[in-house]
Amino acid sequence: LKLVTGNSNPALAQEIADYIGVSLAECQVNRFKDGEVQINIGESVRGSNVFIIQPTSAPVNEHLMELLIMVDALKRASARAINVVIPYYGYARQDRKARARDPITAKLVANLLEKAGANRVICMDLHAGQIQGFFDIPLDHLVGMPILADYFLDKQLEDPVVVSPDMGGVTRARQFAERLGAPLAIIDKRRPAVNVAQVMNIIGDIQGKTAILIDDMIDTAGTITAGAKELLNRGAKGVYACCIHPVLSGDGVERIQNSEIQEVVVTNTIALPEHKRIDKIRVLSVAELIAEAI
Amino acid sequence: LKLVTGNSNPALAQEIADYIGVSLAECQVNRFKDGEVQINIGESVRGSNVFIIQPTSAPVNEHLMELLIMVDALKRASARAINVVIPYYGYARQDRKARARDPITAKLVANLLEKAGANRVICMDLHAGQIQGFFDIPLDHLVGMPILADYFLDKQLEDPVVVSPDMGGVTRARQFAERLGAPLAIIDKRRPAVNVAQVMNIIGDIQGKTAILIDDMIDTAGTITAGAKELLNRGAKGVYACCIHPVLSGDGVERIQNSEIQEVVVTNTIALPEHKRIDKIRVLSVAELIAEAI
Ligand SMILES: Nc1ncnc2c1ncn2[C@@H]1O[C@H](COP(=O)(O)O)[C@@H](O)[C@H]1O
Ligand SMILES: Nc1ncnc2c1ncn2[C@@H]1O[C@H](COP(=O)(O)O)[C@@H](O)[C@H]1O
Repeated sequence: LKLVTGNSNPALAQEIADYIGVSLAECQVNRFKDGEVQINIGESVRGSNVFIIQPTSAPVNEHLMELLIMVDALKRASARAINVVIPYYGYARQDRKARARDPITAKLVANLLEKAGANRVICMDLHAGQIQGFFDIPLDHLVGMPILADYFLDKQLEDPVVVSPDMGGVTRARQFAERLGAPLAIIDKRRPAVNVAQVMNIIGDIQGKTAILIDDMIDTAGTITAGAKELLNRGAKGVYACCIHPVLSGDGVERIQNSEIQEVVVTNTIALPEHKRIDKIRVLSVAELIAEAI
Repeated sequence: LKLVTGNSNPALAQEIADYIGVSLAECQVNRFKDGEVQINIGESVRGSNVFIIQPTSAPVNEHLMELLIMVDALKRASARAINVVIPYYGYARQDRKARARDPITAKLVANLLEKAGANRVICMDLHAGQIQGFFDIPLDHLVGMPILADYFLDKQLEDPVVVSPDMGGVTRARQFAERLGAPLAIIDKRRPAVNVAQVMNIIGDIQGKTAILIDDMIDTAGTITAGAKELLNRGAKGVYACCIHPVLSGDGVERIQNSEIQEVVVTNTIALPEHKRIDKIRVLSVAELIAEAI
């Protein structure tokens, strides 16, 4: 068993290696002067069962190409099996033709990984479970919700209510609520444009309760900050938020900082650069979960 | 017949469209907030023969992913045939395992394009002709050398000699010399021993002549500027340089600016950003050549 990492989340890869009790294999992923990916695998991988830890988070095209080229190099170096561990699967939201002539990039990425030579995939909390079917190779789909739930159980919030920020996330929210032993509420919203969220209506009782918003990812944070505002307006006592994937693009971090949300709990499927680390964002680790799956 | 372009070289695409006498099809290639490629094809392409003009120049990973996603979108929109026109083929230098465990990214890219759904490829001056064999779909390989040669023929330089900057480029240089009706010289770089500086040897007569260095690409410009210096030291009267692909990464432009080369003639297979356009670099167009091949 060998673990290698690209430049997307080496800290997570190191944590996973520590859990398993191995060291990361010698593999440098650099750039030539013109920006082309340059790979140096410093030790034999012949006959090895290799795991590449590489979420395809932003810059997604760079991280995805690194991953594909690593797979190519490992294949040509006669690795026995190439397992790609993609804790955050970039392009997951482009999973269907929402409009005429849309690409289905989530499927394209699956095809590219298989073509490059991946033999098995480990993913976490895909934006849509259907993406599993985009692959013809074995795929393990890990679920990070229990990690978030355990954190909130420890917190022993008074009178909590789990809130799904939209209809799409109801199933995840229900399971989360079940695990917390808390009731469920749903925000029924309309999205007038991409990256813009609008709160419409709240289904369920949140009066005087502490709301915990849960989503698979927080991107521009428009959805949860608008949701939090509405919950407080309608009588919630306080609002927490949590998600698996802290995409946090655009003004996401500023929006969270300036919001009335008390704490935003996320995981380390995506590495947060220094400037995105604020006290209000609490990061839990998925390293043990992934290590167990490896 | 429909022509579309990504963000790599829209000016070239427009020029090609003008030659053919069509307008570019409605196709917006943008980014979502998190950097994922977003594509909007604004008109029907059902049953069309579509040509995508997209050199995979720097940022290569961005431009390559744009191209793959455009192919995916066009395929799913029922285009009859998808022709990818890649005037500069990124990763062409990673075309073999030069060291153990190298990837062969030029082959990976070929596989990815085919997998995405490309039906035919048009390339220009591949770094190695062998890359043609990396594809199983039809490929047209265009040669830009005559465009450079015609420019120098018009110039009517006195007593020219064509110089290949290394052994790898000898064949191209010979054809170029033939077309110019000029003699050929070759710079032969040797390292007499490990840890001893390279020695440049010049094979052929350059004394009192005007040298024209020719290469397929100029990247950091280290090779041609060092070559030019040596040629002048050994009695050349003046030095010009030319190439098809102006990669010009790192300090390439500064090196050219500060060199004794009188003029560097390149083509527009790669779009030069504003800050790389200097008087000393003359850009010739390959639009007509490509338009004829389409
Ligand atoms: N990176 C992205 N950022 C924002 N929106 C996206 C992104 N990728 C895809 N989408 C759009 O998000 C929608 C899918 O989101 P959802 O309804 O939550 O599954 C589709 O209309 C996509 O066009
Ligand atoms: N983008 C690049 N920039 C510089 N060198 C590269 C690049 N891609 C590949 N190479 C290296 O260039 C060598 C091949 O160049 P050549 O001998 O001119 O075909 C190989 O050793 C590659 O590792």
